[in-house]
Amino acid sequence: MAKLETVNETEVAVLEPELVELAREIAAGERSFHRLPAELDAATAAAVRRRALELRAAASGGVLELRNLGAFTLDAERAATRHCESFTGAIQVPLGMVGPLRLRGEDLERGGEESVMVPLATTEGALLASVNRGCRAITAAGGATVWVDDVGMTRAPVFRTRDLGDSRNLVRFLEENFEEMRVRAAATSRFLELLEIRPLVLGGTTVLARFRFLTGDAMGMNMVTIACDRLVRELIEPATGARCVALSGNYCTDKKSSSVNFQLGRGKRVIAECVLDSGTLERTLKTRAELLVEVQLRKNLHGSIAAGSMGYNAQFANVLAALFIATGQDLAHVVEGAMGLTHFEARDDGAVYASVTLPDLPVAAVGGGTGLDTQREALAILDVKPDPARPGAAARRLAAIAGAVVLAGELSLMAAFTSNDLASAHERLGRGGSERAT
Amino acid sequence: MAKLETVNETEVAVLEPELVELAREIAAGERSFHRLPAELDAATAAAVRRRALELRAAASGGVLELRNLGAFTLDAERAATRHCESFTGAIQVPLGMVGPLRLRGEDLERGGEESVMVPLATTEGALLASVNRGCRAITAAGGATVWVDDVGMTRAPVFRTRDLGDSRNLVRFLEENFEEMRVRAAATSRFLELLEIRPLVLGGTTVLARFRFLTGDAMGMNMVTIACDRLVRELIEPATGARCVALSGNYCTDKKSSSVNFQLGRGKRVIAECVLDSGTLERTLKTRAELLVEVQLRKNLHGSIAAGSMGYNAQFANVLAALFIATGQDLAHVVEGAMGLTHFEARDDGAVYASVTLPDLPVAAVGGGTGLDTQREALAILDVKPDPARPGAAARRLAAIAGAVVLAGELSLMAAFTSNDLASAHERLGRGGSERAT
Amino acid sequence: MAKLETVNETEVAVLEPELVELAREIAAGERSFHRLPAELDAATAAAVRRRALELRAAASGGVLELRNLGAFTLDAERAATRHCESFTGAIQVPLGMVGPLRLRGEDLERGGEESVMVPLATTEGALLASVNRGCRAITAAGGATVWVDDVGMTRAPVFRTRDLGDSRNLVRFLEENFEEMRVRAAATSRFLELLEIRPLVLGGTTVLARFRFLTGDAMGMNMVTIACDRLVRELIEPATGARCVALSGNYCTDKKSSSVNFQLGRGKRVIAECVLDSGTLERTLKTRAELLVEVQLRKNLHGSIAAGSMGYNAQFANVLAALFIATGQDLAHVVEGAMGLTHFEARDDGAVYASVTLPDLPVAAVGGGTGLDTQREALAILDVKPDPARPGAAARRLAAIAGAVVLAGELSLMAAFTSNDLASAHERLGRGGSERAT
Amino acid sequence: MAKLETVNETEVAVLEPELVELAREIAAGERSFHRLPAELDAATAAAVRRRALELRAAASGGVLELRNLGAFTLDAERAATRHCESFTGAIQVPLGMVGPLRLRGEDLERGGEESVMVPLATTEGALLASVNRGCRAITAAGGATVWVDDVGMTRAPVFRTRDLGDSRNLVRFLEENFEEMRVRAAATSRFLELLEIRPLVLGGTTVLARFRFLTGDAMGMNMVTIACDRLVRELIEPATGARCVALSGNYCTDKKSSSVNFQLGRGKRVIAECVLDSGTLERTLKTRAELLVEVQLRKNLHGSIAAGSMGYNAQFANVLAALFIATGQDLAHVVEGAMGLTHFEARDDGAVYASVTLPDLPVAAVGGGTGLDTQREALAILDVKPDPARPGAAARRLAAIAGAVVLAGELSLMAAFTSNDLASAHERLGRGGSERAT
Repeated sequence: MAKLETVNETEVAVLEPELVELAREIAAGERSFHRLPAELDAATAAAVRRRALELRAAASGGVLELRNLGAFTLDAERAATRHCESFTGAIQVPLGMVGPLRLRGEDLERGGEESVMVPLATTEGALLASVNRGCRAITAAGGATVWVDDVGMTRAPVFRTRDLGDSRNLVRFLEENFEEMRVRAAATSRFLELLEIRPLVLGGTTVLARFRFLTGDAMGMNMVTIACDRLVRELIEPATGARCVALSGNYCTDKKSSSVNFQLGRGKRVIAECVLDSGTLERTLKTRAELLVEVQLRKNLHGSIAAGSMGYNAQFANVLAALFIATGQDLAHVVEGAMGLTHFEARDDGAVYASVTLPDLPVAAVGGGTGLDTQREALAILDVKPDPARPGAAARRLAAIAGAVVLAGELSLMAAFTSNDLASAHERLGRGGSERAT
Repeated sequence: MAKLETVNETEVAVLEPELVELAREIAAGERSFHRLPAELDAATAAAVRRRALELRAAASGGVLELRNLGAFTLDAERAATRHCESFTGAIQVPLGMVGPLRLRGEDLERGGEESVMVPLATTEGALLASVNRGCRAITAAGGATVWVDDVGMTRAPVFRTRDLGDSRNLVRFLEENFEEMRVRAAATSRFLELLEIRPLVLGGTTVLARFRFLTGDAMGMNMVTIACDRLVRELIEPATGARCVALSGNYCTDKKSSSVNFQLGRGKRVIAECVLDSGTLERTLKTRAELLVEVQLRKNLHGSIAAGSMGYNAQFANVLAALFIATGQDLAHVVEGAMGLTHFEARDDGAVYASVTLPDLPVAAVGGGTGLDTQREALAILDVKPDPARPGAAARRLAAIAGAVVLAGELSLMAAFTSNDLASAHERLGRGGSERAT
Repeated sequence: MAKLETVNETEVAVLEPELVELAREIAAGERSFHRLPAELDAATAAAVRRRALELRAAASGGVLELRNLGAFTLDAERAATRHCESFTGAIQVPLGMVGPLRLRGEDLERGGEESVMVPLATTEGALLASVNRGCRAITAAGGATVWVDDVGMTRAPVFRTRDLGDSRNLVRFLEENFEEMRVRAAATSRFLELLEIRPLVLGGTTVLARFRFLTGDAMGMNMVTIACDRLVRELIEPATGARCVALSGNYCTDKKSSSVNFQLGRGKRVIAECVLDSGTLERTLKTRAELLVEVQLRKNLHGSIAAGSMGYNAQFANVLAALFIATGQDLAHVVEGAMGLTHFEARDDGAVYASVTLPDLPVAAVGGGTGLDTQREALAILDVKPDPARPGAAARRLAAIAGAVVLAGELSLMAAFTSNDLASAHERLGRGGSERAT
Repeated sequence: MAKLETVNETEVAVLEPELVELAREIAAGERSFHRLPAELDAATAAAVRRRALELRAAASGGVLELRNLGAFTLDAERAATRHCESFTGAIQVPLGMVGPLRLRGEDLERGGEESVMVPLATTEGALLASVNRGCRAITAAGGATVWVDDVGMTRAPVFRTRDLGDSRNLVRFLEENFEEMRVRAAATSRFLELLEIRPLVLGGTTVLARFRFLTGDAMGMNMVTIACDRLVRELIEPATGARCVALSGNYCTDKKSSSVNFQLGRGKRVIAECVLDSGTLERTLKTRAELLVEVQLRKNLHGSIAAGSMGYNAQFANVLAALFIATGQDLAHVVEGAMGLTHFEARDDGAVYASVTLPDLPVAAVGGGTGLDTQREALAILDVKPDPARPGAAARRLAAIAGAVVLAGELSLMAAFTSNDLASAHERLGRGGSERAT
């Protein structure tokens, strides 16, 4: 079979003369790289930009040929206007699959048991092979149970006051006008529901107020920012005289590790668990319960304590990064998802109880990158589809799957440590080995 | 101009009958999804897998059409063997450009001044427009100065001993045999240089040993894991009787926020600075020095302190995630990069000194995803090319650019807070606005 | 005047022969050091113990003469039974005074302004002189304003369950039976009021439940421990089948720095503020507003961020330790009090706004060491006296004074840094200088 | 036996008329409370101050009788000049004993085994009884082994520079002039030895430099502050042009929890361990190995992780506070000592391995409060006596004992959780029970 689905690279170079001239002007700095004539469609503008980059490089004696960045099927117009300004092309990230992964929980099909194939996109060899082994172990053990708590998305404007008296007034205002704010927030989006405002006075004149909202199937950052903006400008500032210094005061906390998120949660709070019997441990994971318990203690607890880390786990970040790229999530949210705890307990007859706790997992089933073509297909593979009748259900489903696949990643890597094959996996798979891994 | 460079979607569906049958068997669970016949090339295997996913969905009453995942120009064989097991297709992430960004530093062209265009891949609207504004401000101010400290890549095996006496023996062994280990490590790769071993005894019987290496232009995780494995198996365990519980003991710390990395660094430690005069502040950033100083204090310091965060910044993670996808970095390392401090000081005549400190930035100019076609082109745009005569220089160059573009992102977003246009940017750009942003 | 109030040291040695024999037997290991004949009063038992220690030392060739430990006026019987088992004598800690310190706040005399003299006990020369200077500055500036939030005392039992399902049941039980628990807790002490139960599931089978109570004028640890014990044994365990692994699960958090306490508070949450004009800054503190702002930034913010500390202040711990010894507080609680933030803002005409935020300050006006004779006198100097009509008011008063005196300590030490006299103060006062400091 | 060693309280009130007049003037605000006539000896000045406080209270309608604060045997002159300005009396803290406690280690008698009685001063009932039970368990098990690492005392001045270039120059200067600084530091005290300077650039223009010194038997804060002051003023500032913003930049870190101290240590780094067989566990501690392991996991690990704490232990702070008061240590250092990890491992035949790791324990055998009379006697009971021939040995001895007694405290309290008697101990002992505890 020929490479039916890949781009014909010979077609890449064709650009009409006036567009080449446009590219030249950009390369020469005579025109803005970013602001191209409005009549150009987005794909053409991207082609001009790529050519301008090539010419720019040539001008300084370099050779630059951009043969692949222009190969895309995504909707260029949409990408350029909604996702990525100065749109120039597309990065391709290899996508593979792990599974079947059996799992159950309230947020899955009829609360019952399901078996899913999970798309992961990564450039790091050995990751999928490792996660897939974990999936096999979980599935052999009857599946993972997952609990998703829809904590909600948060935004914490930070205010400046004149003194303690004013700060206390502001806090009181927030407490006494919760209902008014709930109603006003709901007016900015029908998917938005204000759940809580948590104020904190620090330094006497700094007041942080952590607003927490349900946001349906959206990840919700934009929604809650817009709602907070309205509340701040129309209600809080006029009524209290406090000045909002920044709509995001880092007490949210967005895209940074943070203790407040670890404790109070953000996005979804997810726990996935399973029990593996000794046979599965031995056959699939080449390990034993007490070895897993020990690695957990020495590495994920003692090691992370020594390091001063909030990641008491082996590789949450690897698995989440791969799932987030595949499904069009905001990749910077991997930072939050990397926090959390793995746990193993020895059970009778050589079995092990295993779990992962992800206190802070912002995910979306609509909005952001989920609307891009390839990402939408990855979500479709997972059957993650927003249902107007059950707002939030699709995002919770995705969170549940994320929890289970993160559990798979932990099981496999932790087991690998006990049988000493981390380095050999790296040697085989990560550096150009020829086999196709399982 | 037609969409010359995009895939002909009508071609997607063609698969030979025996491959369709293969896909059916996989969908029915009669064959492994992962282990396909060896004679299939990787692109064909991917097509079979996609079809199997479609049939699997159909079997349970769903409709799944994977029209875009198969559209790629990346080298499927290479992707399947080196980057992503069970290779099934490619995710496309929109790529745009910011710049020109002027910067200088020892790791840049002749230590002198350069002007670069920076590729960023993201799905989050408004990000590039924002960062680009920061680039304009920096460039108008004469450029950013960047300092890159090549701290080195770390790996910290964790050992179990019987008691304090054994632990002390192990620590002593590591101290006394540093030279031997340096030589042995170097034998595993000519780019590897052992710089330090930092042992820590915790709990009496847990010993963590943080090995730190220079790794040339590679990010280095695989290299150092392999080297540590050799040292542990061939030297440390036999000589001391201590048992290595895990090759990675989380004191490394890999892909988790961590205080040890914040203090001691990991990968590159980068600081970028610039001074903006009042005119640039006003014209380009619509702000003033004292406003930036205040947002820094209330949001990035007070807010992050309240949150218990190690990210004393506005959006390091956003910018790094976009740069990391574009250039084929390990995305999970964004977790580490998200740590760090922004800083503003008012200077005379309304000017502001601005800086970003990134204590922990693992980046690569070779290896991992840098070898993929689109990613390699993005690196080429940045003129990041390993030079055997100067190992490590290309990775340091990339780190320097990362520092400057992160600074651009901070300047722009922090200024946006002061002029209250974060929410409006979200409304305009992130939710389907029609304009092409600057 | 002779040393009227000091002990006649020549009297120390007299012990009746049968008591000397008892001491000898103890020293020889023939009798327990701890369990002495019941007919001995506590002071005599202490004398026997001291003699036993002297004889024990002599037996191994040493010379030990305990001339001062026996010099006390505290009620030995009470000390031995309520405060300190195996009571053997008393440690004398020098007590000095700082003030007058002017302050105001709802928890002070009639919400109005007061001027207090504050007793501090310490062995560290220069501390009181420094704090006193801060008191002078505050008083000259018209006094400090203090806000005390009675967060309440916390205790967080930790439970083990079998799986996620059981954990969720436990959480639900706690939520649904709050009122029942509130009533039962109140039955264990009339000063106890249950305010909140905050559950957290971690690792699937670990459930922490942070109970928060008002405890009147008591610090409250004992009260809340007893109440939690009852609730756990009589209600929670029987109803849910969950097993309480420890009554204190460290999520309380008692006597350790902790992010949860920093954010949610424990004991009292206190903020004290004042505004100093440029004249006071110059005359009393030898400094200027912008210098204080800069030390705050570089030392208390940047420095503590670099250190990974939750103490964004100069010396909360020093001042609190001295106040806690003087007033009979639980000294280990200084650990919690040491967390918190100092803050300075430049105001018009060279003035400075200064504040301290203490998120976690457990203090008592009754119970614990407050009942000891010297400590009771120190509390009397502060006019801290429980009033049955206003439970909790005395403890809040103490907390308010603590906040103001901590502010004094920060002002003075921070100013000292700016005028470079920390080291010279250490040289003059801490190492045997002869002057009497102010 | 009469209360031979206690003060005759009837003597308290006698003050000569001119001193009463002096007290009246002070109470009326006509004279300074702090600056009394130079001819008054310290004890008399203290008596005048107490009377002034009584008169001050009377003036506002209150009744204040200070009968006990004046009862002391400490050397008032010394206390007033070296330890506590505005000296007014003494606080009495009950002292009891725990032990015998068997322990061994390089820093103990001939590296061999010893048995010590340990003085602890506290106001918190039940503490000594609990710790003493732990001592019995350790002693029954053959004693604790302790390792003391004399990390040294640290001080980290913080500098401000103009830009990154200057910061790098400063760092380079510190690296290149280490030997010069070592020599100059040694000249300020013959006990001082500079071990390391660890610089950290943050924010571009903030440079922290953590100086680490051996300080013999002194805790060393004063010494190192003075030495740093000299180095900064005479060498670093003149040579580099950098300005020292504060001699202590919180990266030291003094008297605050801090990750840098947890990792790199401060003062002494201490680990104490023991192995208890099942018989000792059952008889003395009423527990079993697996129960201790579980409490450790759920409480000290999971609970402290949930809390965001650096204290992965049960009650380090309680035990250290009691030992620090008894032996004249700087009480604010309990904040640092409270960090650290307890650890339990099940061993064969029902035995348990137990350890405590204290990364940061500043202690002194000379200087500070160690010179006060009662405190000196407590140190003498422990046979902690500086020996000029072995500088530092006495402080290390004290640190070793501290480690072992902290271990005793952990063993006993952790065991109490497993047998559910924490609350009942509080009820019996802490609230006025009549029995004399063991």
